[in-house]
Amino acid sequence: MIKFLDLHKINHRYEAEIRERIGAVLDSGWYLQGKQNERFSRAFADYCGVAHALGVANGLDALTLILKAYGFGEGEEIIVPANTYIASILAISQCGCMPVLVEPDLETYNIDPDLIEQRITDRTRAIMVVHLYGQAVRMERIWALADKYGLKVIEDAAQAHGAFYQGRRVGSLGDAAGFSFYPGKNLGALGDAGGITTADEALFEKIKAIANYGSDYKYHHIYKGVNSRLDEIQAGILEVKLQYLDEDNARRRQIAAFYREHIVNPQVLLPWTYAEDAHVWHVFVVRVPRRQAFQAYLEEHGIQTNIHYPTPAHRQLAYTEWAELSMPVTERIHEEVISLPISPVMSDDEAGRVVEIVNGWR
Amino acid sequence: MIKFLDLHKINHRYEAEIRERIGAVLDSGWYLQGKQNERFSRAFADYCGVAHALGVANGLDALTLILKAYGFGEGEEIIVPANTYIASILAISQCGCMPVLVEPDLETYNIDPDLIEQRITDRTRAIMVVHLYGQAVRMERIWALADKYGLKVIEDAAQAHGAFYQGRRVGSLGDAAGFSFYPGKNLGALGDAGGITTADEALFEKIKAIANYGSDYKYHHIYKGVNSRLDEIQAGILEVKLQYLDEDNARRRQIAAFYREHIVNPQVLLPWTYAEDAHVWHVFVVRVPRRQAFQAYLEEHGIQTNIHYPTPAHRQLAYTEWAELSMPVTERIHEEVISLPISPVMSDDEAGRVVEIVNGWR
Ligand SMILES: Cc1ncc(COP(=O)(O)O)c(/C=N/[C@@H]2[C@@H](O)[C@@H](OP(=O)(O)OP(=O)(O)OC[C@H]3O[C@@H](n4cc(C)c(=O)[nH]c4=O)C[C@@H]3O)O[C@H](C)[C@H]2O)c1O
Ligand SMILES: Cc1ncc(COP(=O)(O)O)c(/C=N/[C@@H]2[C@@H](O)[C@@H](OP(=O)(O)OP(=O)(O)OC[C@H]3O[C@@H](n4cc(C)c(=O)[nH]c4=O)C[C@@H]3O)O[C@H](C)[C@H]2O)c1O
Repeated sequence: MIKFLDLHKINHRYEAEIRERIGAVLDSGWYLQGKQNERFSRAFADYCGVAHALGVANGLDALTLILKAYGFGEGEEIIVPANTYIASILAISQCGCMPVLVEPDLETYNIDPDLIEQRITDRTRAIMVVHLYGQAVRMERIWALADKYGLKVIEDAAQAHGAFYQGRRVGSLGDAAGFSFYPGKNLGALGDAGGITTADEALFEKIKAIANYGSDYKYHHIYKGVNSRLDEIQAGILEVKLQYLDEDNARRRQIAAFYREHIVNPQVLLPWTYAEDAHVWHVFVVRVPRRQAFQAYLEEHGIQTNIHYPTPAHRQLAYTEWAELSMPVTERIHEEVISLPISPVMSDDEAGRVVEIVNGWR
Repeated sequence: MIKFLDLHKINHRYEAEIRERIGAVLDSGWYLQGKQNERFSRAFADYCGVAHALGVANGLDALTLILKAYGFGEGEEIIVPANTYIASILAISQCGCMPVLVEPDLETYNIDPDLIEQRITDRTRAIMVVHLYGQAVRMERIWALADKYGLKVIEDAAQAHGAFYQGRRVGSLGDAAGFSFYPGKNLGALGDAGGITTADEALFEKIKAIANYGSDYKYHHIYKGVNSRLDEIQAGILEVKLQYLDEDNARRRQIAAFYREHIVNPQVLLPWTYAEDAHVWHVFVVRVPRRQAFQAYLEEHGIQTNIHYPTPAHRQLAYTEWAELSMPVTERIHEEVISLPISPVMSDDEAGRVVEIVNGWR
């Protein structure tokens, strides 16, 4: 059986270092907002090439905190791709803003820059781009629009730790970025975790306070804040794993290249990238017409898959107000996509076996 | 130096068990929503004597989730004591509800039941009681009011794990309860953590979904949810520590009894309890007229203290809309309280030394 993602194996590679780091936290008796957070956020900011990083509780919180810090709310609109994990959209709803869904293009699955301008109104405050499946959004057009209309650019970088656009890492491409360190992510904690990066110091300080009960120092509350922090244990684990992220991403690229070279099945549409270093292959998503049968076939042949995602946000019960909305590109993607196993711990043999089985599908 | 709270020492007692439990999570490769959560929430529900418990990210989230699950929002009012950690109040604001502050009584520091009824309007939806400093609120009057006006009773039990009222534990006294497992709490994790208890199965299921991106099962989103979950690592640690909670609370009671018997200084007003098993002494709060000088004096004599809390919510910048509000009892408490060291790992000698120094204050 080839697992979709063998997290135990992934983390086992660093088990000694991870145990040591957890041990250090236990020995310190300090579990929150301490040295491990300082070290990890310094290292992560440097990695992304941006001035500030802050650990928070999870990826959804990261996005929500950014929007809250900007003060966006009732009556204001945020542009977001219709094709994303629902969390991008939930963050916007959470703040009382209206998510304005825009179709992706079928080549990158990322938001279609050509369709954004027509959705901008005088209530639009920001464009949230999602670097989906591991591929950085081509930002040129987005920046131009943001400039033209005075909008903030917020990156949802949950799926693309380490990906580049024009030589810059995601997390440094917008005004602020939210990351998820959910265990299954390219950089994953051993529990829920998230992060925010930004070059904007005032925004950074405001987010830090909002995420800490709205306080800038102990018992001094300047905002109606929340609690969203990164445990020292998880910060320590993430600092360990960050050292290996580029290596891990390189291995993902190898496997993706291997798949893209050797999967030759007219029924299976392969993913594409506009630049090799733009993509960190968080998931390897193909499109097939009869997805359910294909998935069952793979399962039968010992290959676990996942679907990112089966149902778009506008077809979820959580958003019945969008029941009439038609998003044909998004809907088609959600009907046809299926994610093949990919991970830094997959062997060449396993990848070869996936190719063989996929090529055998009729 | 006698620390205010020696968390390293507290947790070191179970270090072997905690390391083993963390090891088990590492070995399993499963870090969220797994067996450790199941086990801990079962054990915690049983401990509280209530049907359901759910681990969430922290105590503030726990309260917010309860209010969200009830659907309380804009234009609705929640009654809450003015004398509390600001998180109780932030949870209410977070949902768009109006917190209606009620003064505490000076005997228990808990909400004054006599002052609640006059604050009930046709927009009131719930009474949030806070079992402050470790002492369960006397619920009789609260229940009667809730009955009379059809209000929900929500417990903020962040400071009172294990305390009893009329033979029932906090967490089982209202319609739903929020707990914090912040490291410094009587039951504390090694990071942020929280929990919810309720006998109401429908509410429980709804909260579980809301806290999991609004989904009742994978990729099926029925609410505009958030991400608020308890890491498997923290659930495992909490299950270990829960076994010793009653013992720990018993030791806290001993120290409190010792303080109450031996501190005899007319300048130092001791705390009171209406029933021994009602109080778990999360903090040992005394009132002194010249607090700042008293705190400096203790510090000079090697005794760390803390203040719960220096500034009430209605005097914080986060709530400038309350700048004109006058809450004399609450304000007086905030001016005079100071918390002496108390913890399950304090020795008799240390407690004796605190008594001696406190009695020497003029
Ligand atoms: C664009 C975007 N924005 C915001 C967010 C929100 O970030 P968050 O709040 O941090 O979740 C996401 C999150 N995104 C992900 C989302 O993509 C989805 O990811 P998924 O691939 O379906 O995840 P999964 O199936 O639970 O896990 C992947 C594999 O890993 C295995 N596993 C998992 C766990 C937890 C384990 O302990 N052990 C395992 O072996 C099981 C699976 O085979 O669902 C998650 C809950 C979200 O965090 C996003 O993609
Ligand atoms: C009624 C009520 N409702 C909701 C809540 C919200 O719950 P939460 O979201 O889980 O915080 C609270 C939280 N309540 C507490 C609040 O009472 C206050 O508690 P505190 O006693 O001031 O806490 P502290 O000074 O940070 O820690 C206590 C001692 O422990 C030491 N320490 C601390 C840490 C974190 C450590 O790692 N190592 C240490 O040695 C330092 C201190 O000497 O501030 C916390 C941040 C809140 O979680 C509440 O009281």
